[in-house]
Amino acid sequence: MSRKNCMVAQSGGPTAAINASLSGVIQKVLDTNSYQTVFGSLHGITGILNNNILNLNKLFKDNPNNQHRLTYSPAMFLGSCRYKLPEMNSNISIYQKIFEKFQELDIDAFFYIGGNDSMDTVLKLSTYAKEINSDIKIIGIPKTIDNDLQVIDHTPGFGSAAKYIATSIMEIAYDAYIYTPKSVTIVEIMGRDTGWLAGASALARNHFSGAPHLIYLPEKPFEKTQFLRDLQVQLQIHSNVVVAVSEGIRDKNGVFISAGENKLDTFGHSQLGGAGKYLESFVKANMDVKVRSIELNVLQRCAAHLTSRTDIQEAVTLGSTAVDLSLENKTGCMVTLIRTSNAPYTVEFGYQNIQDIANHVKYVPDSFINDSGNDITADFLTYLSPLIQGETTPCSLHGLPEYMDISHLLQVK
Amino acid sequence: MSRKNCMVAQSGGPTAAINASLSGVIQKVLDTNSYQTVFGSLHGITGILNNNILNLNKLFKDNPNNQHRLTYSPAMFLGSCRYKLPEMNSNISIYQKIFEKFQELDIDAFFYIGGNDSMDTVLKLSTYAKEINSDIKIIGIPKTIDNDLQVIDHTPGFGSAAKYIATSIMEIAYDAYIYTPKSVTIVEIMGRDTGWLAGASALARNHFSGAPHLIYLPEKPFEKTQFLRDLQVQLQIHSNVVVAVSEGIRDKNGVFISAGENKLDTFGHSQLGGAGKYLESFVKANMDVKVRSIELNVLQRCAAHLTSRTDIQEAVTLGSTAVDLSLENKTGCMVTLIRTSNAPYTVEFGYQNIQDIANHVKYVPDSFINDSGNDITADFLTYLSPLIQGETTPCSLHGLPEYMDISHLLQVK
Repeated sequence: MSRKNCMVAQSGGPTAAINASLSGVIQKVLDTNSYQTVFGSLHGITGILNNNILNLNKLFKDNPNNQHRLTYSPAMFLGSCRYKLPEMNSNISIYQKIFEKFQELDIDAFFYIGGNDSMDTVLKLSTYAKEINSDIKIIGIPKTIDNDLQVIDHTPGFGSAAKYIATSIMEIAYDAYIYTPKSVTIVEIMGRDTGWLAGASALARNHFSGAPHLIYLPEKPFEKTQFLRDLQVQLQIHSNVVVAVSEGIRDKNGVFISAGENKLDTFGHSQLGGAGKYLESFVKANMDVKVRSIELNVLQRCAAHLTSRTDIQEAVTLGSTAVDLSLENKTGCMVTLIRTSNAPYTVEFGYQNIQDIANHVKYVPDSFINDSGNDITADFLTYLSPLIQGETTPCSLHGLPEYMDISHLLQVK
Repeated sequence: MSRKNCMVAQSGGPTAAINASLSGVIQKVLDTNSYQTVFGSLHGITGILNNNILNLNKLFKDNPNNQHRLTYSPAMFLGSCRYKLPEMNSNISIYQKIFEKFQELDIDAFFYIGGNDSMDTVLKLSTYAKEINSDIKIIGIPKTIDNDLQVIDHTPGFGSAAKYIATSIMEIAYDAYIYTPKSVTIVEIMGRDTGWLAGASALARNHFSGAPHLIYLPEKPFEKTQFLRDLQVQLQIHSNVVVAVSEGIRDKNGVFISAGENKLDTFGHSQLGGAGKYLESFVKANMDVKVRSIELNVLQRCAAHLTSRTDIQEAVTLGSTAVDLSLENKTGCMVTLIRTSNAPYTVEFGYQNIQDIANHVKYVPDSFINDSGNDITADFLTYLSPLIQGETTPCSLHGLPEYMDISHLLQVK
């Protein structure tokens, strides 16, 4: 029997671990010789529609460092898309076109690495495959720094983002502690709907430094007057108070704190500032203390120079597990990892039907947030700690990290 | 003859290398047994006035890892201050108080690690010492991420900041390149008066990525309409354009671009946004392209997890050289390093009279900026490249860097 081919693509927002899963898929295919060719669709599912497809078979053979280099490169080697598949009954021709391309390339399995929206694509494609009696396996491989996918213990990319955030908070605290005048430093952390990332800032604490001294998540309503009281209490104890806030904190009516009050910029557009900038102004207006706000930028999700070895290794294994599942004829599922023990930390890799995952959001549970809604609990810390363990060493060249050559993404489109 | 003591202090803004110079001072004193006790004044010169002084003799003996840990810890182990010594003729009693404390502690040499303002303190103290015929040696040890000190080839802290900035720009570019729609990413980099740091972003370029595609420094007047034309040209060539701007860019009248046009926030205070946020709004209002701005935050100066080995080693040697100079009875000077060769990169350590350094600013020279004022030259790159070479490994614990215990700075003041 002649071997068939497989295809892989990436979608959604970048993480520092999403290429590790791609690396796991490619290496497993090469190791097992299970598919003749592993194709990569550029810019997610749209690469199939636009015939923008790479042959990845030689990627690791072209350069012996490429496997390591790809594993530790940020963002997406195959590019991304923000394309949501239409419902089947509204545009069946898209589905037909995708499966025609699968047939043309003799594809037997399609692996989609992504977050919530990408799992929606896995659900739709696998449902369509079933309807037309296609035996093409459609398997999701999770990633998202947001850690908001159901079923899985945590998502690849989250551990590295958590490590970056905790390290940054620690360094920001050292920066704040050197001055004697009282100060408040507000650090805004990604997380529009969930507080997993902001909560991870607590990992920065040690036996002498309590920074961040206050943590606010979107899961609990944010009360501005209570925030001022919280600050006053902390400033009695500490000269330099560091606060971690999710970008998505909102009041009891669900209105984002970052929304401010109808602020317009010089050009008449609504103001760009987020929760951190807003709270900086708010504290300045209400307290006599030095205040600054810091927005942790996109490096939270793409700082491949500072990743968690645990996270990267799990991401690789999830990629290789997806190949295994396809060979066992599993489809319409996502590879998962379940924590089986905390000390020592152990996980088991498995899979779950995609219906149980797609379009559901996992919020930080109540047991992980303190009663006052201004800190996390010890249980949350216990959950977080194993995920940031272990250092990594990307390739380096001339004093900088050496990431994968992505010139195939740099053509003018 | 009984040995005397010495004292060291830190001042100004933090860098990732300033503790390396402190480490160099302490280790040299211990190795040479040249002073009986090395005292540390907390919060710069103010520790002398407030009797806030540590005995550092046992620091490295208490824990065998402390030398390495201190060398690779961010910000200031001794704390900082923003205190400017008054002129001698306006407040002579401050000088008398400082030198009384020196006498009380049997101090023979005082080392001040800092930037421009700190060298002003070195100048004033050494001038006073000469006037009162004191033989206490007053020696400056340079540091500043801004690289704006005269005489020295480059300042400790700059190389690590440059490495952090170039790595970040590279990772931000990877983050931008994954999407197909055209986009502009504006990255605001520290540097109120000089463009050394923004220029260092050019180190991120390689054979396939030109990011940052445009670079604007405070040394050249910023023309907003020319900026739009520059962007249009780049967007013809690249889908995702990355722009590096100094926070201090200003128009031909010297008005900061970040100043905007009288923007007030919700609370009636002037708007906090910098040059990046302003240009983001400006491009949005004038071009049909996706735009975002990113402010590289204080991690530029305190990200000890990502430093240049070259930079850290030079900072250590400047500290130890200062001790050597004091033993040769040099005073009223700053230790310097002069580049003697680019390939291979070599430097010589020496010293310079403090009058030649204090209160002078070193700007990026014309030969380092292109004629259009939107990029740097090859000469600037040649200058920068050696300064970021070599990786470092801070101590780590539980998945995070383990920096020096600075609980002595965390008392409520």
